[in-house]
Amino acid sequence: MTPSSKTPRDAYKDLERRFERMNLVRDAASMLEWDAATYMPDGGADARADQLATLRVVRHEMLTDPAIGDVLARAGEAADLDPWERANLHEMRRERVHATAVPSALVEARSQATSACEMRWRSARRDDDFAGLLPLFEEVLKLTREVAAAKSSSLDVSPYDALLDEWEPGGRAADIDVVFAAIERFLPSLVERVIERQASLPILAPPVGPFPAERQRALADRVMRALGFDFAHGRLDVSAHPFCIGVPDDVRITTRWDEADFANGLFGVIHETGHALYERGLPKRWRKQPVGQARGMSTHESQSLLFEMQATRSPEFVGWLAGVAREVFGGSGPAWSAEALLQHVQRVKRSFIRIDADEVTYPLHVVLRFRLERALLSGDLPLKDLPGAFADGMQRLLGVRPSTHRDGSLQDIHWPSGTFGYFPTYTLGALTAAQLYGAAVKQAPAIPGALAKGDASPLTAWLVEHVHGLGSSIAPGEIVRRATGEPLSPEIFRRHLEHRYLAS
Amino acid sequence: MTPSSKTPRDAYKDLERRFERMNLVRDAASMLEWDAATYMPDGGADARADQLATLRVVRHEMLTDPAIGDVLARAGEAADLDPWERANLHEMRRERVHATAVPSALVEARSQATSACEMRWRSARRDDDFAGLLPLFEEVLKLTREVAAAKSSSLDVSPYDALLDEWEPGGRAADIDVVFAAIERFLPSLVERVIERQASLPILAPPVGPFPAERQRALADRVMRALGFDFAHGRLDVSAHPFCIGVPDDVRITTRWDEADFANGLFGVIHETGHALYERGLPKRWRKQPVGQARGMSTHESQSLLFEMQATRSPEFVGWLAGVAREVFGGSGPAWSAEALLQHVQRVKRSFIRIDADEVTYPLHVVLRFRLERALLSGDLPLKDLPGAFADGMQRLLGVRPSTHRDGSLQDIHWPSGTFGYFPTYTLGALTAAQLYGAAVKQAPAIPGALAKGDASPLTAWLVEHVHGLGSSIAPGEIVRRATGEPLSPEIFRRHLEHRYLAS
Repeated sequence: MTPSSKTPRDAYKDLERRFERMNLVRDAASMLEWDAATYMPDGGADARADQLATLRVVRHEMLTDPAIGDVLARAGEAADLDPWERANLHEMRRERVHATAVPSALVEARSQATSACEMRWRSARRDDDFAGLLPLFEEVLKLTREVAAAKSSSLDVSPYDALLDEWEPGGRAADIDVVFAAIERFLPSLVERVIERQASLPILAPPVGPFPAERQRALADRVMRALGFDFAHGRLDVSAHPFCIGVPDDVRITTRWDEADFANGLFGVIHETGHALYERGLPKRWRKQPVGQARGMSTHESQSLLFEMQATRSPEFVGWLAGVAREVFGGSGPAWSAEALLQHVQRVKRSFIRIDADEVTYPLHVVLRFRLERALLSGDLPLKDLPGAFADGMQRLLGVRPSTHRDGSLQDIHWPSGTFGYFPTYTLGALTAAQLYGAAVKQAPAIPGALAKGDASPLTAWLVEHVHGLGSSIAPGEIVRRATGEPLSPEIFRRHLEHRYLAS
Repeated sequence: MTPSSKTPRDAYKDLERRFERMNLVRDAASMLEWDAATYMPDGGADARADQLATLRVVRHEMLTDPAIGDVLARAGEAADLDPWERANLHEMRRERVHATAVPSALVEARSQATSACEMRWRSARRDDDFAGLLPLFEEVLKLTREVAAAKSSSLDVSPYDALLDEWEPGGRAADIDVVFAAIERFLPSLVERVIERQASLPILAPPVGPFPAERQRALADRVMRALGFDFAHGRLDVSAHPFCIGVPDDVRITTRWDEADFANGLFGVIHETGHALYERGLPKRWRKQPVGQARGMSTHESQSLLFEMQATRSPEFVGWLAGVAREVFGGSGPAWSAEALLQHVQRVKRSFIRIDADEVTYPLHVVLRFRLERALLSGDLPLKDLPGAFADGMQRLLGVRPSTHRDGSLQDIHWPSGTFGYFPTYTLGALTAAQLYGAAVKQAPAIPGALAKGDASPLTAWLVEHVHGLGSSIAPGEIVRRATGEPLSPEIFRRHLEHRYLAS
């Protein structure tokens, strides 16, 4: 049967079958990535790389199959698609455009360049050697510009927005500019005031370790169950870098334990649990289709941060958590009080490293990267001048100046691996988290009281209804607008910070 | 480029690329099977089944791609293939014939019938309900006959041999008949004599448990290292049923611990270690090609049994093992002597359940199944008469008569899951193991002395040279003949049993 001999609805059904298969191949690959980071013996790395590359090529060939173009066109004529089917078709087109926009020779060249640069970056960061990385880094940037240009013409957006669209579907730098300009206006002085205020308060010393890993694991289990993580459909394991991967019925999260400070591992677990609950709550009917997937990185990050920063760093939850921690570690005395734990997990300080930053200073790290990556991509900022521009920007926004590349422009893997347009999603996620949590508590006032008893079920029920269950059926900004009644607002984030760090 | 415009060598190279990709998809699937049996949460089972089914379909479509037929024909004209390439081409053809011989509607129907029957078998065995299983079992047998008929005409062998070829490449029931007839002649009376003799000796009571799992694991680690298992390229985990799966650089084995008898788990580990060493020793240059894979099930089983039954149940190795066991469990006294351990692991008894059988009685279980499965496939034995025929056969060969289906014809999953032609490989493997080990010790006399010191390296070096490193470049029987100087011989197996169980 040729595509044109199919009814539009048959064409749509054909697409559902094709995308189901593609998604299952991708799911298989994601489980092998989990294994590679957790249980795979070191000597299996090359074989695993070959397996993963093959699954990716197989999926890419399915997605770029020339026959799909006609089927997509035919399905678009269907007048009887319901809103979910229509949204699904939209997501199929989006995936297809991203996959076909770039000539395969360029995909291959960029993949090789980023692999080489990523590997070199590891030693360059260790050796603080920006100059040594520069040639490979230039090549990655050049090829990334070519990819951005190719996607730009297919998607009919700017080159930067074309890259942003991979992580934040429909996102526009112009909209982010408005939000980030507001952050730049209020946040540096707010950081100043918070640090001064915290310095003026008496310090409640937190408990001193070492905290044995198996006790930390027991605490994490208790907290994950409290948040609604279902161990019949997921696992917690240890890896070098925490992550969340998997499918709704089998979500795997990882963490690492810090024997000196149990809060580090625990809040890492809570962060990944937020990601996991999102995956678990995706609409059952659409799990194998594009519209049933999570709605991009800012929404995903909003779910992890909503748990890590909003719900579990609240006085209500910390009150419950301190009791459980005393029980698990056998602690007692003032160091184990809820007050001491709250002060410990709400500590704000200026620091060089983004991934170690607290929720108050974090957005300034991201604003800086957003400014710099646009300038790098457009060519306004020559790559060789990045270290200086990075240090200047940190000085201006955060008030600290890195004296090494390691603490400056070499700290993140994103750019050396060709990932541009990803950084803003961290802060869009943080803003979204604050706004969603505020609305949730307003609409379901039982949430804080339940958290005080170690019960997150009123919160998760609200999230499933307003976020998780929507999958990719509407745009990220539309999720926020419908759930909270207003567009994403930096003002709400500001009020959250002022309330938590400057009030009373 | 059409196939006919390619040079024969280019056509061959094209096949290498295609089969490399197919094998990597299969390898990916095997890792997901490992995960499903070890770490996957129960609730992930349906999602995993979908992923695995998709990978299998994708691989099957690659293998049955009509274009491959022409490429295979063109490659066959190549005059400049070296012996390995020629053998590789032979294996490619074999895989292709098995994949294309059966119409896809029949493949699908049989797959559904076996899934349903396998599931029903679990409860039928538990409830001892042969009649309840019969309708689904009949359907599986009927469809298996159709598959056998289809493969029979493509492979130009009998229907049974066509099924046997999946597990024992090039194997023929007529040859197995000769070997098994010899076993039937000598083994029942040999079993009789061994049991009488063991009953006449004073019993050395073995140590009494419970043996904690973590101590058993420590002992297993020591033994695996002694046998040459490389933990940089493999793992040991726990699963409901022990197995070995993976790729040469990443071989995963599993076991289960029996707190009452540490020898159960340990010799299970040794068995799987034998499989793992075979995978690890496959020829590096050919790993991603059909010729670089293990040479069928009898050869694979020969490697596990060579370690489990020949090398590590020898007095030399048990002497070393008893010392390590005393150290690991902190044991002392006569129960922990090498003599007691040797008597314990060489105990022979008549039993109903094949998988619990010792090496002396085991072949009689297999001979019975071989006779019965051929009669079932040909129709000489109606399926409804299986339980009676099974009980009669056990009475005749083993001298015990099962009073339940559970202890009789419902004990194995093979037939309900449509697996016919597999059983004989267990005993062909046992005979091969005895013959290879005898030849190895003759050619490399240092082997037993090294085993007495917990060093299997002279043995594994011999196996890599004579078995592992050959991959699938020659037929199973040819491996035996070249390594030992004679064809597979039940007489050598008989001598091994007499020497171990009746001598001195």
